[in-house]
Amino acid sequence: MTGVAVDRERSAARIESDIEHLSGAAYTRSTDAIRRYAYTPEYRTTLDWFAGELESIGFTVTEDPVGTMVARNRPPGEPAFGVGSHCDSNRNGGKYDGTMGVVTALEVCRLDVEHELGLPLQLISFLEEEGSGFGQMLLGSRIIAQRITEDDLRERFRAVDDGRSFWEHAEEAGYEPTRWRECASVLDGLTGWIEMHIEQARVLQDTHNRIGLVDAIAGYVHADVVVQGRGDHAGATPMDLRLDPTLVLAETAIELERLARAAGRGTVGTIGEIEVDPSLINAIASSVRFSLDIRGPVDDAYRDVAAEIAAFAAHAAEARGMRAEYAERQTLPATPMDERIVGALEAVAAATGEPYRRMHSGAAHDTMCVADRVPTAMVFVPCKDGISHHPAEEADPADAALAAAIILEAIASLH
Amino acid sequence: MTGVAVDRERSAARIESDIEHLSGAAYTRSTDAIRRYAYTPEYRTTLDWFAGELESIGFTVTEDPVGTMVARNRPPGEPAFGVGSHCDSNRNGGKYDGTMGVVTALEVCRLDVEHELGLPLQLISFLEEEGSGFGQMLLGSRIIAQRITEDDLRERFRAVDDGRSFWEHAEEAGYEPTRWRECASVLDGLTGWIEMHIEQARVLQDTHNRIGLVDAIAGYVHADVVVQGRGDHAGATPMDLRLDPTLVLAETAIELERLARAAGRGTVGTIGEIEVDPSLINAIASSVRFSLDIRGPVDDAYRDVAAEIAAFAAHAAEARGMRAEYAERQTLPATPMDERIVGALEAVAAATGEPYRRMHSGAAHDTMCVADRVPTAMVFVPCKDGISHHPAEEADPADAALAAAIILEAIASLH
Repeated sequence: MTGVAVDRERSAARIESDIEHLSGAAYTRSTDAIRRYAYTPEYRTTLDWFAGELESIGFTVTEDPVGTMVARNRPPGEPAFGVGSHCDSNRNGGKYDGTMGVVTALEVCRLDVEHELGLPLQLISFLEEEGSGFGQMLLGSRIIAQRITEDDLRERFRAVDDGRSFWEHAEEAGYEPTRWRECASVLDGLTGWIEMHIEQARVLQDTHNRIGLVDAIAGYVHADVVVQGRGDHAGATPMDLRLDPTLVLAETAIELERLARAAGRGTVGTIGEIEVDPSLINAIASSVRFSLDIRGPVDDAYRDVAAEIAAFAAHAAEARGMRAEYAERQTLPATPMDERIVGALEAVAAATGEPYRRMHSGAAHDTMCVADRVPTAMVFVPCKDGISHHPAEEADPADAALAAAIILEAIASLH
Repeated sequence: MTGVAVDRERSAARIESDIEHLSGAAYTRSTDAIRRYAYTPEYRTTLDWFAGELESIGFTVTEDPVGTMVARNRPPGEPAFGVGSHCDSNRNGGKYDGTMGVVTALEVCRLDVEHELGLPLQLISFLEEEGSGFGQMLLGSRIIAQRITEDDLRERFRAVDDGRSFWEHAEEAGYEPTRWRECASVLDGLTGWIEMHIEQARVLQDTHNRIGLVDAIAGYVHADVVVQGRGDHAGATPMDLRLDPTLVLAETAIELERLARAAGRGTVGTIGEIEVDPSLINAIASSVRFSLDIRGPVDDAYRDVAAEIAAFAAHAAEARGMRAEYAERQTLPATPMDERIVGALEAVAAATGEPYRRMHSGAAHDTMCVADRVPTAMVFVPCKDGISHHPAEEADPADAALAAAIILEAIASLH
């Protein structure tokens, strides 16, 4: 421990001021929401603001070949501990998702300077976490982790706004996407990594905790089920002669809830999209498509639920004379956090006397792409009513200040 | 009975020829489907063709003040027996829905002349049964039954194509909508009414019957249920902290099926429209709206189901900490057919030796608006796989010829 007494009220005031500043007109493309994404003037202005703040406290700021911002208080290559998040937003976003994490990381850097701790630090602000620019979530950190192909960048990933490729946009913004493989070096020399983020759910609020210490990020299965029924006249077709796919949807939804609860261990299952064809009040649907989002921190648990619900839907359809087809869109394993770093955070958090809990993250984060190569952890702060990705998003700068103090102390304790 | 031996093969050939003729380019606004509706050149051409055929066999053809076609072989005011249907189509329609009924009525008139029966007949081709022109089903017959208001015609009912009022379009087409109340006289002097129509479901096909004798047209309740849940992150929100409205939808869908089956007596219940907000794979829905179509020939039976499912949805939502609101869109009581006319049809049908069954109509028909003032019945013929309102619609002219012979004999037997 450093023994340093951090003035958390001052930190909270600075964090609040930074957040408010970054929600000003120069930093968002919408007057109704925070909307900023890669290669727009508003995003450029945001990076420039962070760079200015970091340079003013002695950090050297660079950008990788596609625009991920890296600030260090040690020369390149020397070991440093990583902090940061992302400062892009979703298109109808709030002030806090991502940005509060970078602001809190900046506060950690400020505190390090003010208290003359001399910790080796590297701040990262990842590119395109939200996918608002090119429809690809975690894009910057996936490039760093080399989890994409050159063809993705040149051809497949296209701008939501104009359909032109990521490659073209990056070049137009002055970057060198041909050097994308070099982005991997962003993680070189990192001895650890801690990302702070708003929780985006209501576990902390509902359990009255100010801090969440993330010990795993959930893996997930994203899939679709299409049930083929028979579109008949709703009035003229007796109950016995129907092949109504909405009833298979109904049975599957109830079974998914049962399976997820029975699986426990943080497993959740959701049907978020439902598409009925033709969707007319007086027509039995000819087909129904619905999505499955099944997640959890324990791979075996949520994957079993996915397999069981796929089989259930097939049987439920068959029992009614229909067919259900299950198709996986995407799956990603759970990412365990590093126990040494989580333990260091927990020791400091416990010492503050503030209420905290260990938890897993149900949402995906850039940290998933860091964890391959660097020991990582995350710190959550509550957000009001779990609202996120919406202008009504709200989080308390005092919680972020508490997080900054805990992160600073934990890094110090690890050195 | 007339004792006349109708040549049903010749009738079938004529009906087939008429149906094919009326699906030619001059009679439809689409090359992919039958698409014709009031006040279009294609609809005008269709009425003119029927008028020509009817005049050639001695009928006098007129139109009511908004365009319903009336053809009689007796002077106005004298008693006559009504036959007919509608010859407009839905926008993506087939050759048979409606038109086959008017063609079959024309065949009844032809047979009356050929066999020199001298029956007093009135053929009606109703306007805008499908609602393709102005989004209002059974419009012509509702005007005749005075089930609309002048304000509806002047202001509320607007063309799907250009948003201008029914009134304007009717005037432009040379009609006198100011005289709409006189449309009621279309039914003056009718001693009975029989409409032939394709079944639009698969009961006749699946039970191997060629003729359906309709003894009631189902009444219905159309309603919506909106379940307000709470939109949370699908990954980050534990099963215990969710207010997921799709689960209330699921429970209600299964209960609706159970209630409709339990009610029996022809009761059916369908959820045809489902709208999930925001409909994202990784978001628990904040709300779900779904439609209810609950019908049957027995008012008490289907109305009880509607009341019970509304209460069920409210309780199911409440049990999960949510709210469900039920709002009725429209309700119409069942329309019993006239037992004397149904009985006459049945006696003739039985004598043919062909397979037939009594049944109710789950779909609405113009006959519902005739039944207030005139003893009515309907005759159904099978349509392939129950497909209707679609270019793939298919029905057998031989069945229509059988229907024509039965209707002719039944009318004769009633005189």
